[in-house]
Amino acid sequence: MSSTGNGDKLWGGRFAEATDAFVEAFTASVDFDQRLYRHDIEGSRAHARMLARVGVLTDDECRRIQEGLDDILADIERGDFAWLTELEDVHMNIEARLIERIGDTGKKLHTGRSRNDQVATDIRLYLREAIDALILEIRRLQAGLLDLAEREADTIMPGFTHLQTAQPVTFGHHMMAWFEMLERDHARLQDCRRRVNVLPLGAAALAGTSYPLDRRYTAQLLGFDDVTDNSLDSVSDRDFAIEFCAAGALIMTHLSRFSEELILWASAQFGFVDLPDRFCTGSSIMPQKKNPDVPELVRGKTGRVNGNLVALLTLMKGQPLAYNKDNQEDKEPLFDTVDTLAGSLRAFADMVPHIQVRAETMREAASRGFATATDLADYLVRRGMPFRDAHEVVGKAVRHGVETGRDLGEMRLEELQGFSKMIEADVFDVLTLEGSVAARNVHGGTAPEQVLARIRAARAELDKGKG
Amino acid sequence: MSSTGNGDKLWGGRFAEATDAFVEAFTASVDFDQRLYRHDIEGSRAHARMLARVGVLTDDECRRIQEGLDDILADIERGDFAWLTELEDVHMNIEARLIERIGDTGKKLHTGRSRNDQVATDIRLYLREAIDALILEIRRLQAGLLDLAEREADTIMPGFTHLQTAQPVTFGHHMMAWFEMLERDHARLQDCRRRVNVLPLGAAALAGTSYPLDRRYTAQLLGFDDVTDNSLDSVSDRDFAIEFCAAGALIMTHLSRFSEELILWASAQFGFVDLPDRFCTGSSIMPQKKNPDVPELVRGKTGRVNGNLVALLTLMKGQPLAYNKDNQEDKEPLFDTVDTLAGSLRAFADMVPHIQVRAETMREAASRGFATATDLADYLVRRGMPFRDAHEVVGKAVRHGVETGRDLGEMRLEELQGFSKMIEADVFDVLTLEGSVAARNVHGGTAPEQVLARIRAARAELDKGKG
Amino acid sequence: MSSTGNGDKLWGGRFAEATDAFVEAFTASVDFDQRLYRHDIEGSRAHARMLARVGVLTDDECRRIQEGLDDILADIERGDFAWLTELEDVHMNIEARLIERIGDTGKKLHTGRSRNDQVATDIRLYLREAIDALILEIRRLQAGLLDLAEREADTIMPGFTHLQTAQPVTFGHHMMAWFEMLERDHARLQDCRRRVNVLPLGAAALAGTSYPLDRRYTAQLLGFDDVTDNSLDSVSDRDFAIEFCAAGALIMTHLSRFSEELILWASAQFGFVDLPDRFCTGSSIMPQKKNPDVPELVRGKTGRVNGNLVALLTLMKGQPLAYNKDNQEDKEPLFDTVDTLAGSLRAFADMVPHIQVRAETMREAASRGFATATDLADYLVRRGMPFRDAHEVVGKAVRHGVETGRDLGEMRLEELQGFSKMIEADVFDVLTLEGSVAARNVHGGTAPEQVLARIRAARAELDKGKG
Amino acid sequence: MSSTGNGDKLWGGRFAEATDAFVEAFTASVDFDQRLYRHDIEGSRAHARMLARVGVLTDDECRRIQEGLDDILADIERGDFAWLTELEDVHMNIEARLIERIGDTGKKLHTGRSRNDQVATDIRLYLREAIDALILEIRRLQAGLLDLAEREADTIMPGFTHLQTAQPVTFGHHMMAWFEMLERDHARLQDCRRRVNVLPLGAAALAGTSYPLDRRYTAQLLGFDDVTDNSLDSVSDRDFAIEFCAAGALIMTHLSRFSEELILWASAQFGFVDLPDRFCTGSSIMPQKKNPDVPELVRGKTGRVNGNLVALLTLMKGQPLAYNKDNQEDKEPLFDTVDTLAGSLRAFADMVPHIQVRAETMREAASRGFATATDLADYLVRRGMPFRDAHEVVGKAVRHGVETGRDLGEMRLEELQGFSKMIEADVFDVLTLEGSVAARNVHGGTAPEQVLARIRAARAELDKGKG
Repeated sequence: MSSTGNGDKLWGGRFAEATDAFVEAFTASVDFDQRLYRHDIEGSRAHARMLARVGVLTDDECRRIQEGLDDILADIERGDFAWLTELEDVHMNIEARLIERIGDTGKKLHTGRSRNDQVATDIRLYLREAIDALILEIRRLQAGLLDLAEREADTIMPGFTHLQTAQPVTFGHHMMAWFEMLERDHARLQDCRRRVNVLPLGAAALAGTSYPLDRRYTAQLLGFDDVTDNSLDSVSDRDFAIEFCAAGALIMTHLSRFSEELILWASAQFGFVDLPDRFCTGSSIMPQKKNPDVPELVRGKTGRVNGNLVALLTLMKGQPLAYNKDNQEDKEPLFDTVDTLAGSLRAFADMVPHIQVRAETMREAASRGFATATDLADYLVRRGMPFRDAHEVVGKAVRHGVETGRDLGEMRLEELQGFSKMIEADVFDVLTLEGSVAARNVHGGTAPEQVLARIRAARAELDKGKG
Repeated sequence: MSSTGNGDKLWGGRFAEATDAFVEAFTASVDFDQRLYRHDIEGSRAHARMLARVGVLTDDECRRIQEGLDDILADIERGDFAWLTELEDVHMNIEARLIERIGDTGKKLHTGRSRNDQVATDIRLYLREAIDALILEIRRLQAGLLDLAEREADTIMPGFTHLQTAQPVTFGHHMMAWFEMLERDHARLQDCRRRVNVLPLGAAALAGTSYPLDRRYTAQLLGFDDVTDNSLDSVSDRDFAIEFCAAGALIMTHLSRFSEELILWASAQFGFVDLPDRFCTGSSIMPQKKNPDVPELVRGKTGRVNGNLVALLTLMKGQPLAYNKDNQEDKEPLFDTVDTLAGSLRAFADMVPHIQVRAETMREAASRGFATATDLADYLVRRGMPFRDAHEVVGKAVRHGVETGRDLGEMRLEELQGFSKMIEADVFDVLTLEGSVAARNVHGGTAPEQVLARIRAARAELDKGKG
Repeated sequence: MSSTGNGDKLWGGRFAEATDAFVEAFTASVDFDQRLYRHDIEGSRAHARMLARVGVLTDDECRRIQEGLDDILADIERGDFAWLTELEDVHMNIEARLIERIGDTGKKLHTGRSRNDQVATDIRLYLREAIDALILEIRRLQAGLLDLAEREADTIMPGFTHLQTAQPVTFGHHMMAWFEMLERDHARLQDCRRRVNVLPLGAAALAGTSYPLDRRYTAQLLGFDDVTDNSLDSVSDRDFAIEFCAAGALIMTHLSRFSEELILWASAQFGFVDLPDRFCTGSSIMPQKKNPDVPELVRGKTGRVNGNLVALLTLMKGQPLAYNKDNQEDKEPLFDTVDTLAGSLRAFADMVPHIQVRAETMREAASRGFATATDLADYLVRRGMPFRDAHEVVGKAVRHGVETGRDLGEMRLEELQGFSKMIEADVFDVLTLEGSVAARNVHGGTAPEQVLARIRAARAELDKGKG
Repeated sequence: MSSTGNGDKLWGGRFAEATDAFVEAFTASVDFDQRLYRHDIEGSRAHARMLARVGVLTDDECRRIQEGLDDILADIERGDFAWLTELEDVHMNIEARLIERIGDTGKKLHTGRSRNDQVATDIRLYLREAIDALILEIRRLQAGLLDLAEREADTIMPGFTHLQTAQPVTFGHHMMAWFEMLERDHARLQDCRRRVNVLPLGAAALAGTSYPLDRRYTAQLLGFDDVTDNSLDSVSDRDFAIEFCAAGALIMTHLSRFSEELILWASAQFGFVDLPDRFCTGSSIMPQKKNPDVPELVRGKTGRVNGNLVALLTLMKGQPLAYNKDNQEDKEPLFDTVDTLAGSLRAFADMVPHIQVRAETMREAASRGFATATDLADYLVRRGMPFRDAHEVVGKAVRHGVETGRDLGEMRLEELQGFSKMIEADVFDVLTLEGSVAARNVHGGTAPEQVLARIRAARAELDKGKG
C-alpha cells in the first residue's frame, strides 16, 4: 500500500492525499455498474485476444488472462465476489481481482484502452442484448394481439373520438391499432440497435492509442457491425442511450394509452372487458374491489421512462468533450428504462391473450349514441347531396333524437324524411351496426374483411422475422 | 390458506384465482417502500393510541399493539425481518407480522384507515424528516460559504458575463452569490414543509370512515400542524412530492452552476482554485490526471432530479380521483431525489471550506480583458458626458487596446485623451482593480465593505435559526 | 452612424464588423420581449426618479425623461411604434426612441444600470402582475366550486379508486377535492410571489455600480418588498421563473385531473354530467358529435407547461455566473406558461358553474358495484369481529354477489347470514347509500354535514381575502 | 345563418347554443395552424383528384375545386386572406372560402375524409419538408467542419477529459468529433422521415370511410412511400412528431456541447479561437465586451427543444383512442422545434467556416499539463513494464513535476531515470507533442494521417448523397 492511502487505486501515483471515505462512496459506481460484469468480461476477453493477435500480448499471457477472467466470471455468478467501493467501478474491481489471481500478466490487460472506451463498450454490449430481449417481448405481445384481433374481428364496439361515441368499429380493428403502434416501436428499436452496435474500444482515453490495435478484429469477436470513427466522440457519446430511452418513452406512451383503455373498459360504467383475476389486486379496506393494477401501474411507469429520458438529455447538455465524470450518471436511467420496459411488455404480453370481451355490452353501447350518423350523411351524399349539406341535415336529425331519446335507427321513416326528402326505406340498411362496419371497406378501415387481411399480412411479417 | 391461493393476502376473499407470480413481483412495492418502516410503525402507533382514546380499541388492545410494533421495529433494525413480496408492501408486511405475533388484536389495527391514507401519512412523515435533514446540510454549506467569503472578501478576480471578462469583483462577493441561492432554497423547503406537514390519516380509502376518529389527536401525536380537509383529495394528492422535487431541482440547478464554475476554475486554463485531492480522482490510463470528480458528478446528478420531477408530473397528469395504482410510482423518484440532494449537499458542505484560492492568478486575469472599461465610462459620465456617449468613447479606446495589445491602464494619458479631451491624469485611479471594486459600494455590490456587511447580516440570520 | 455598421447599436464602438443580418434576427428578442414594454417603462420611470433624488439627474432632466417615456408609452399603446430588430430588444428600442425624442438627456437614463438588471426587473414586474391576475382566476374558480358543491352537497355518486366503484360519496364532496387542490395552488403562488417581489435593479451588469444609487427608494416606488443582496446573483437568477412554472405545472396537473373526470363523466358510458354546448364543439364529419373540447384541450395543455418547466431547468443547468445570453430564452416559456394558465383557469371558472349534474344516473351507478361493502365490514367490526376477518367475510359475500348478479343490499338476510351469523336485520340500514354517506362523518369525510361545514369555512377564508 | 349561432361552423346542426366567444378563441387553432396552408391545399388537391379518379367527383367538379384552391393559395401568399377564429382551424377556413368561391361543389371536397385524417396528413407533409430542409443544413454544417478539420489537421491542441489536460490532439480531429455526431443526427432524421412519410388520409374520422377511396393513388400523388394500415391508429398517432423532437433534442444536445466549447475557447482564459465579430454582440454598459452570443443562445435553446419533447410525451400519455382535442396541442411544440433547429443549424453552418484558430495558444496549452504522461507510460510498456506499473511510475514523475513546476519534457534524463531505470535518452522523442499525436495512429485516433483519411471518406459520403 502506498503512503498516500490511494494504493488500492489503480491511479494513486500522482496523489498526495487519500480520498475521503464519503467522497469515495459518493463517486463510486460499483453499486450499480456491477450489473455490467458479463459484458465487461466479454469485452476484456476480446480485447486480450486482439492484443495477442497484434503481438502486444504473448499467446500464453492471453491464455492466462482468459482463464483468470473465466474464474472471475464463475465467482461472480456463484455469488462469491466481494465488490469493493474503494475500487470504484466494475472495471477496476475485475481488473484488480485479475491481477490478484494471475499476477503481473493481469496488469497488461489494460494496455491500449482506458476506462472511458471500456465502459462505452460495456454499455453498448449490454444495451444490444437488452434491445434483442425487448424485441422478443414486443413480438410476443404483437402475436397475442393478432390472435385476439382475429378472434374478435367482427365483434362490434363503439369507436370513440373525444371519448364520445363516434362510429361503430370492431374490437379486432381496435386491437390492431395497438399492433401498429408496436410495429413502429419495433422498427425504432432496430434502427437504434444499428447505432448501438458500433465498437468504441480503441479510442482509449480520448485520443486513440499508440499500440497497433486491430479494432475491426475486436469488433468481429464481439459481434459489432462497425467501429467508431473518432476517438473523442467515442468516449463522450451517449446518443445511443438517449435514442434508446426516447424509443422506450414511445413504447411506454403506447402502453399507457392501452392501459388507459383497459382501465376504462374494465370499469363498471363501460364493462367492455374483464381482466383475469391474476392481473388484478384487491383492497385492504373495501372487500369488493378488483383493481386493474397491472395497466394502472404500467400507465404510471410511463412517468419514470419519460423522466429517465429527461435525466439523460439534461446530463449531456452543454458538456465539453471528451469524457467527464457526469457521464457516470448515464447508467441508472438506462438500466431502469430497460427494466421498466421489460416488465411492462412482459406483463402485457402475458395479459393480452386472456382479456375477456363482453361482446353484448359493447354492442349495446354501439347501438346508442348515434354511432351511425355518419352513415346517414354518406347515404345522402351518395344520393347527390353535397357532404356539408348532408352533415347539416343529419345534425338536425340527431338533435331531434337527443330531444326525444331515440337513436336514428329507432325513428320512423316519416320522421327521418322530415329532415330530407331524399331518405327512403333502404336507409335502415345503412343504420345497422353491421352495415356501418362492413361499409368501411377501405385499406386500414374497420370492415372485418380489411381487418382480417391486415392480420394475415402482419402475421406473415412476424413469421418472416422468426425464419 | 384459502383455496384461491390468495390466502396470504389481506384482501383475498373476493378473488377466484391466485395472483400470477410475475404479476405479484411486478406490482409489489415492498422492495422499495420497506424504507418507510419507521414511519409506518410510528403512524400505526399513533393510530392505535387514537383508536384507544375514542374507544374503538381497549387500552389493553392498544398496549399489545404498541408492544407488538415495538418488537417488529426492533426486529427490522436488527436485520431480522423477512420482507415478503407476496405481502405486497411495507404496510401489509408489518401488519401480517403483527397479527402473527399478537393474534386477533392485531387485526383491529387497520380499523378506520386504509392503505391509501396510511401510505400518504408514511410518505409525509418520511419527507418531513428528510426536509429537516436537508435544511441542516444547506445551513452547513452556507456557513462554509460565509467563512470562505469573509476570508476572501477583498481577493480580486475577474467577474464574467458571457464567460468574457466583464468587471473586477471579489472572490468573497462571488461566494456570496451561492449563499443567496441557497437562501432561497432554504425558504422554498420551508414553504414546502408547511404543505407536507398535514395529516391525511382518517381519509380511509377515499370517503372518510364511519368510526369516530379523532384526527386532530393523531395529528398532535405525530407532530402534524393540521389535518387534511377532504378525504378524496387526501388519498390522491401527491402535490407535496412534486413541490419538493421542484425545490430539489432548483437546489441541483444551483449546485450544477457552482460545479460548472469550480470545474472551470480548476482547469489549467483558469487556474483560479485548487480542489483538495480527496475530492478528486485519477485516471486509469493518464497518470497525470487529477479530476474534479465531485463537482462533475453533482453537475451530472442534476439530470436525475430533473428527471424525477418529470416522472412525478407525468405520473399525476390526467389521473382521475381518487387513489390509483399509478401512485405507487411516486416513491422511487422521491427517495432518489432525497438521496441525491443529501449526498450532493454533503459533498459540497465538506468541500467548500477546503477550496484553495489562487489569488495571484485571479488578480492577473482581472488585470487583463479591459475589466475597468466601465469605470472609464463612469469617469466620463461624472465629468458630464451622457452615458451613451461615454460608452462609445470607451468602446473605441478598447478597440485600440485590442489592436495594440494593451489594457486601458497601460495606455499613456495622451493616447487616452485622443479618445476624449475630458480625460485627465486622475483617470488612472479609477483604472486600478482596487479602485474599481471599492467604487461599487451600493447594496449588493462587490465593494468589500458591502460584502462584509452582508456576511455579518447573513451570519446573524443563520445564528438566529439555531437559537 | 459609425463606419462599422453597428452605429445603431448602443454598444457598437468596440466592433470592427457589422452583425450579420441573419445573426441579428436570430439573436434579437424584440419580437417577444416587446410584451414587457409597460414594465420596462415603469422601471425606467422609477430609475430616473431615483437618479434625480440622489443627484445624478437634475429635476429637469428627470422631468423630460418622464415625459418622453409617457409619450413612448402612448405611442406603443396606440400601435404607433416601430419595433426594430436591429435594436435587439425592448430596452434598446425604447431607449433609442427616447434619445431620438428628447436628445442627450435620454442618454443619461441608462446611468447606473445595465440591461442585465433592467430585464430582471422587467420580468419580475411582469410576473408579479401575472400572479395577481392568476390568483383572481383561481379564486373565481374556487367560488364556483363552492357554489356547486353546496348545491350538490347530498347528491350521491359512486366514489372510485382504480376507476372501480369503491364507496358512495357526494358530488359536493368530490367538488371540494378540487377546491382543496386549488387552495394549495393559491398558497404556492403566494409563496412564489414573495420571492418574485424583490428588486434586482442596481446590480448593473454584475458587480453593482459606482453611482450612489438608492435602491430601496426605487424598490418603494415600484412596490417591491425588498432589494436583492448580491449583484452577481441578481443578474443571473431565474429561480423565480422556474418556481412559478413549477407551481403552474401543479395547477395544470390539477386541471388535467379535473378535465379527465369531466371527460369521463360526460361520456355516454358514465353520463354523470352534461357540459353546456358552448364549451363543446362538433365534428366536421360526424354530425352527432358533441365533444368536451375545453377539458380535453386543458388536459392537453398540461404538456406545454411541463415542457416549459423542463425548458427553463435545462436552460439554467450548469450556467456559470453571471449573465449569459442563454438567459434570453427565459421569456417565451414564462410567457407561454402565464398565458396557458390564464386561459385554462378562465375557461374552467366560466364552465364550472354551468356543469349540469345527472343525479339519477350517478345514484343508479352508486347502487351498483358493491359500494357499501365497506359498510358491511364496519358493521361486523362494530359487533366485535376484527377488521381483517370482517374484510374476508364480506369478500366472500361479494364474490357470491358477482356470481349471482346482485348487490349486497339485494340479498336476503338468510343469504347474508350464511357468511356470518353476526349479521341481523338492521344490516340493511348500513347498506343504503344515504346511510353509508352519512356515516362517514369524520373531518374531511363525505357526510353532507362535513361537506357543508367545510364549504362554510372555505367561503369565510375566501371572503377574508377580499376584505 | 342558423338560429343556433353556430351557422358559420361546418358542424353546427346538432347544437342548441352558440359557442362562447372566449371558448371559441381558446379552442381555435387557426392562429398557429394557418402555417400549414400550403400542405393543407396540397393534400386537398390530391384528395380531389383521387375522388375524381374513383368517380366520387366528376372531372369538372375536380377541376373547379383545383382552380378554387389555386386561387385561395394565391390569395394567402399575397396576404389577402382573412383567417377567421370562428372557423376554428386552417382546414375550415380554406374549405369555407372554397365553398364561398365555387359554391356547392366545394361542399363535396370533404367527402370521405375528416379533419382528423386531414390534419395528420398536413403535419406529415409539413414535417417531411422540414426534415429535408434540416438535412441540407446539417450537410452544410458538416461540409464546413470537414474543410476546417482538413485545414487544421495537424494543429495541436490539448485534449481534455474532466476539463483537465489529458493528451494532445489535433484541432482537426476535434472538429471531426462534431462531424460524427451530426452524422448520427443525419441518420436519425432519415429513419424518422421513413415513418413520417406514410399517408393517413382515408382513415376519415377513425373508422375508415364508406367511399371507394384509392388511398395508394393519393399517396402516390403526394409522394408518400406507403399508406397507414389502421384507421384508429392513423388519426391518433403522433409518434412521428415525438420521434422527430427526440432526434431534434439530440441535435441540440450536440450543438449545446459544441457551443460550450466555443464559449470556453473564446474566453480570455482559453484563447483558443476567435469568433467573427458578426456572430457576437456587445454590452450596453461594458464597452469592451464582445460576447459569443450565437453559441450561448444555441446552448440555451437546447432547453426549449427538450421542453417540446416533454410537452409532446406528456400530451400523449394515457390518451384513449382515437382522436382527442388534446392532440391540437401537437403543433406548436413541433413548429417551434423545427424553427429552433433550422435557426441553430444555420447559425452554426454560417459561423463554422469563419472560426479563427489561435494555433500558438493551443500549442502552448498542450505543452503544459503533462499531456504526454500517457506516452511515457506507453514507452515503459513497450520496454516490458506491465501497464499498471508504468502508470504508477509516471504518476510519481508527475507528482514531482507538479512540485517542481515543470512538465515531463522539461526534466533531465537523470531525473526521469530516478523513477525508472528503463528510461533512456530516446524518451524525449515520445514526449514531444508531434510524436504523441502521430503515435495515435489507430482508426479513429488523433494522428493526422487518420484524421485526413476520415475526412476523405466522409467527404466521399457527403458527395454521394448529392449525386
